Amino acid sequence: MGLNVYLSGEIHTDWREQIIDGAQGLDITFNSPVTNHEASDDCGVAVLGAEPNKYWHDHKGAMVNAIRTRKGIADADVVVVRFGEKYKQWNAAFDAGYAAALGKSLIVLHGPDHQHALKEVDAAALAVAEQPAQVVDVLRYVLTGKLPD
Amino acid sequence: MGLNVYLSGEIHTDWREQIIDGAQGLDITFNSPVTNHEASDDCGVAVLGAEPNKYWHDHKGAMVNAIRTRKGIADADVVVVRFGEKYKQWNAAFDAGYAAALGKSLIVLHGPDHQHALKEVDAAALAVAEQPAQVVDVLRYVLTGKLPD
Amino acid sequence: MGLNVYLSGEIHTDWREQIIDGAQGLDITFNSPVTNHEASDDCGVAVLGAEPNKYWHDHKGAMVNAIRTRKGIADADVVVVRFGEKYKQWNAAFDAGYAAALGKSLIVLHGPDHQHALKEVDAAALAVAEQPAQVVDVLRYVLTGKLPD
Amino acid sequence: MGLNVYLSGEIHTDWREQIIDGAQGLDITFNSPVTNHEASDDCGVAVLGAEPNKYWHDHKGAMVNAIRTRKGIADADVVVVRFGEKYKQWNAAFDAGYAAALGKSLIVLHGPDHQHALKEVDAAALAVAEQPAQVVDVLRYVLTGKLPD
Amino acid sequence: MGLNVYLSGEIHTDWREQIIDGAQGLDITFNSPVTNHEASDDCGVAVLGAEPNKYWHDHKGAMVNAIRTRKGIADADVVVVRFGEKYKQWNAAFDAGYAAALGKSLIVLHGPDHQHALKEVDAAALAVAEQPAQVVDVLRYVLTGKLPD
Amino acid sequence: MGLNVYLSGEIHTDWREQIIDGAQGLDITFNSPVTNHEASDDCGVAVLGAEPNKYWHDHKGAMVNAIRTRKGIADADVVVVRFGEKYKQWNAAFDAGYAAALGKSLIVLHGPDHQHALKEVDAAALAVAEQPAQVVDVLRYVLTGKLPD
Amino acid sequence: MGLNVYLSGEIHTDWREQIIDGAQGLDITFNSPVTNHEASDDCGVAVLGAEPNKYWHDHKGAMVNAIRTRKGIADADVVVVRFGEKYKQWNAAFDAGYAAALGKSLIVLHGPDHQHALKEVDAAALAVAEQPAQVVDVLRYVLTGKLPD
Amino acid sequence: MGLNVYLSGEIHTDWREQIIDGAQGLDITFNSPVTNHEASDDCGVAVLGAEPNKYWHDHKGAMVNAIRTRKGIADADVVVVRFGEKYKQWNAAFDAGYAAALGKSLIVLHGPDHQHALKEVDAAALAVAEQPAQVVDVLRYVLTGKLPD
Repeated sequence: MGLNVYLSGEIHTDWREQIIDGAQGLDITFNSPVTNHEASDDCGVAVLGAEPNKYWHDHKGAMVNAIRTRKGIADADVVVVRFGEKYKQWNAAFDAGYAAALGKSLIVLHGPDHQHALKEVDAAALAVAEQPAQVVDVLRYVLTGKLPD
Repeated sequence: MGLNVYLSGEIHTDWREQIIDGAQGLDITFNSPVTNHEASDDCGVAVLGAEPNKYWHDHKGAMVNAIRTRKGIADADVVVVRFGEKYKQWNAAFDAGYAAALGKSLIVLHGPDHQHALKEVDAAALAVAEQPAQVVDVLRYVLTGKLPD
Repeated sequence: MGLNVYLSGEIHTDWREQIIDGAQGLDITFNSPVTNHEASDDCGVAVLGAEPNKYWHDHKGAMVNAIRTRKGIADADVVVVRFGEKYKQWNAAFDAGYAAALGKSLIVLHGPDHQHALKEVDAAALAVAEQPAQVVDVLRYVLTGKLPD
Repeated sequence: MGLNVYLSGEIHTDWREQIIDGAQGLDITFNSPVTNHEASDDCGVAVLGAEPNKYWHDHKGAMVNAIRTRKGIADADVVVVRFGEKYKQWNAAFDAGYAAALGKSLIVLHGPDHQHALKEVDAAALAVAEQPAQVVDVLRYVLTGKLPD
Repeated sequence: MGLNVYLSGEIHTDWREQIIDGAQGLDITFNSPVTNHEASDDCGVAVLGAEPNKYWHDHKGAMVNAIRTRKGIADADVVVVRFGEKYKQWNAAFDAGYAAALGKSLIVLHGPDHQHALKEVDAAALAVAEQPAQVVDVLRYVLTGKLPD
Repeated sequence: MGLNVYLSGEIHTDWREQIIDGAQGLDITFNSPVTNHEASDDCGVAVLGAEPNKYWHDHKGAMVNAIRTRKGIADADVVVVRFGEKYKQWNAAFDAGYAAALGKSLIVLHGPDHQHALKEVDAAALAVAEQPAQVVDVLRYVLTGKLPD
Repeated sequence: MGLNVYLSGEIHTDWREQIIDGAQGLDITFNSPVTNHEASDDCGVAVLGAEPNKYWHDHKGAMVNAIRTRKGIADADVVVVRFGEKYKQWNAAFDAGYAAALGKSLIVLHGPDHQHALKEVDAAALAVAEQPAQVVDVLRYVLTGKLPD
Repeated sequence: MGLNVYLSGEIHTDWREQIIDGAQGLDITFNSPVTNHEASDDCGVAVLGAEPNKYWHDHKGAMVNAIRTRKGIADADVVVVRFGEKYKQWNAAFDAGYAAALGKSLIVLHGPDHQHALKEVDAAALAVAEQPAQVVDVLRYVLTGKLPD
């Protein structure tokens, strides 16, 4: 058994690298959105033409990014969604809902301060973790049956 | 043609009432989550037994509320998701993602300040409105072909 | 057995009225797009705010119209798509493809001049007619087993 | 992440070659309909027997081509639909509707003259481009996060 | 609980009437194909234009009948397929396969002589009966829990 | 909002009556398997002919009962599965798995002694109750937002 | 593009070998039912225990064969169904209906004598051939665009 | 043709090893739940944090195990469910129902004592075996057409 895992959500810390590094040796394919904030914001207009209106500037970019996001979630067995300390992160919650509706196994990763605000998201998850290392431990157990010492 | 419309999101203003009142005379069935904040938070423990741990207290409630939410979205032709001025509102974004993955027609309702933060949610929508009256106008046009004067 | 029939395509002749009139007495619910050309073109900006750029003007309207079109096709047992003598009518062909992918029974209505150009669309249909009265005859036969005298 | 991309529509210019050439080095599998116009028109009768009636001649061919088209679209993550300057191209719009109903990511490629006539097709797309090179740029960004200089 | 039951197959005996009569008083909606053999054979050409070639004559009719058959099976909870003593009845077996793939509850009705030849069809069924009265007894039990005296 | 609720599982106590009685006044349609143990065991052979082999005797009955069970679960928004004190009740757990795979909202009802043995079933549920009255309270809250005093 | 092709139906002539031989060099994976008539009839009792009743003997075998048939059809892009000169061949028509309901591309192979009796099956097909060599020609064209000389 | 087979159920005897050993040389990928009883019970708390309440201790573990179980069943062509002599084994019956609802080919493995209690589960199966060697024989026949000597 191998797993395809999509890493959605916060892009300002190195949680993806921690998980990917920690999971070395496991049969996992990881996918993620484009995590370069500037490229992600501007991809629509950079390729398809400038928009003077900020709304359509954002819209064009969000649509292009959706090509990658939809593919990443559609291919995934497990979707990990990380909520960081800051920002609205509505795209993360949107991805969680999208993944839940497709029946993907959902793992949510957030600090204890967000517990109440994320209760509906957590309720759709099969695991709720606080640390990237716990996500690695879950994935290792799922694939190998091995628990951390 | 009649429509089944689910009204998701913010529960601290009267936007649902504005839409339901404005839509009188149209063939629309409206559904909503339980909007009594306290009941919504406590429904799990009130019915299924107290939990000393706040996380499981929240969890039990979120699960019970999901029975209603899933039914409401599954039955809907159109899902309207309202983002208010305050709070994280991750459940609103989660519902939007859930509805999008099921192929529901999505209408997002929010003020201009949230445009950038909601760009991924808006990109999945067929209409983005700032005022409840605009949602009514969209629904009236969809059902009758009549535009506002 | 009753039927839900969606009438897609050309909006400049009275073919819809001919079918609906001819089908009186049969247990059929008919739905159609908004056939007021001007309202259909302007619905987006009339409700959700003006757009100086014609592309986004059109886009907003097409999205709002999609709420009605998707509902109409999703509810339909039979989708009738009419191609008139003039215009590109790509939206008609788009609806035909959309309906075909959902497994709807497709009836295509067009004059003999368009046979070669519409061969891929016709190949997805269960009936290809030249006159609205033939569509009525098909629907009457499907519901009652009666053939025209 | 790799992508499977189906290139639908116009067969009289070299837009497919431009995209395939431009995308060299990216992890993309491209598929297309049979683009030999004569073979595409005659495949039904050439293999399954002549038809004196032109309608059935066309029909047999369209059905055989549908085996390839359906497979191509079903396997695709992204469907690119090109509308050229000439001809009705209803099969292109049909493919776009078919792909949209299956939830494929749709990229539409056409000149500015067709904007109004294609507004319903564009409204179902995640990117609308005028040049094949823009399609390549979108695909490169989706796969690598790299924007054109 | 009510049931929608589609009665497919043999059209030369009164088995449908026996079942419908026997089921009086039960909450069942019955649907059937057009059982007028001549109308069923000629419906395509009678409505959509004559075909000199018998194959296309048959084809046009089979396509029109498919509009009714698909609707009847799609709406059904239970599909009863009757194989009579004579004829090939491949359309009956086709309907059985179609219904099985859609997850419909299948009841097969045939005499003991056909047991070996129908073993694959019977293996997809939840009940195999020899007499129409047994089908009525199954339906009555399913709806009311009452067994025959 | 109304609910369709299927009551699966134990047939030796009056838990179904308690729920149905308690839910009077709520917009709920209840369905259940045939709860007459003897009729349920013998329905296959009583209608479709005796079987000397007990395995096929049971098999024929289980298949006929499946017509009702599948319809009941397919129509349900909520599936309540009750595990009593005695017996294997594998059919109850089978129904729970079947309902979970179809995405139905699952409520499990059992005493505290079965907690460990039912942990996989409970993990698929949105509510786990010990008393029928709690199930009524959950359904009332879901439909009306009212909590017990 | 490669194809997965399932070869269903008649087992008494070498039509499968003709197709597989003719298709050498094409990127096609072929699957078939077990074509050893005796093994196919007896597989159930040979493995799972004898049955004195011929009906259950047949039933057990048909169920075991269904494991292979379902997998073969589920994996297929194209299902070829061959009707020979003799026998009822209801399993072939059942497979055709099953494949059609799953949206598989269907190719039917039969002699001209069966045209009228197979009209419903042919109406669900994308190609109707009389000779195995024509099936090869269709598959070659679908994969390579090459027509026979 | 190759098969993906998921081995669900009893974890206290070596039936999985018997099947995997017996199937050597066949093109089969086997998957199973974690069969280390202690790890399976404790995986939730070991990774995601201790729970003083046994119910939540169990719940957390069951959810983590569900990531593996769902993936295993979703990927499977054939699900084998083994019921041993002892314990409730409700998770086995749950998996059987889950697999049945997804249309997986189900093989049930149990001793003759459980026949009556498992009749609903057996009725959803394509093969019911008493010995692991019979499961191997079924799989070998499905893949190769070879019956045991």
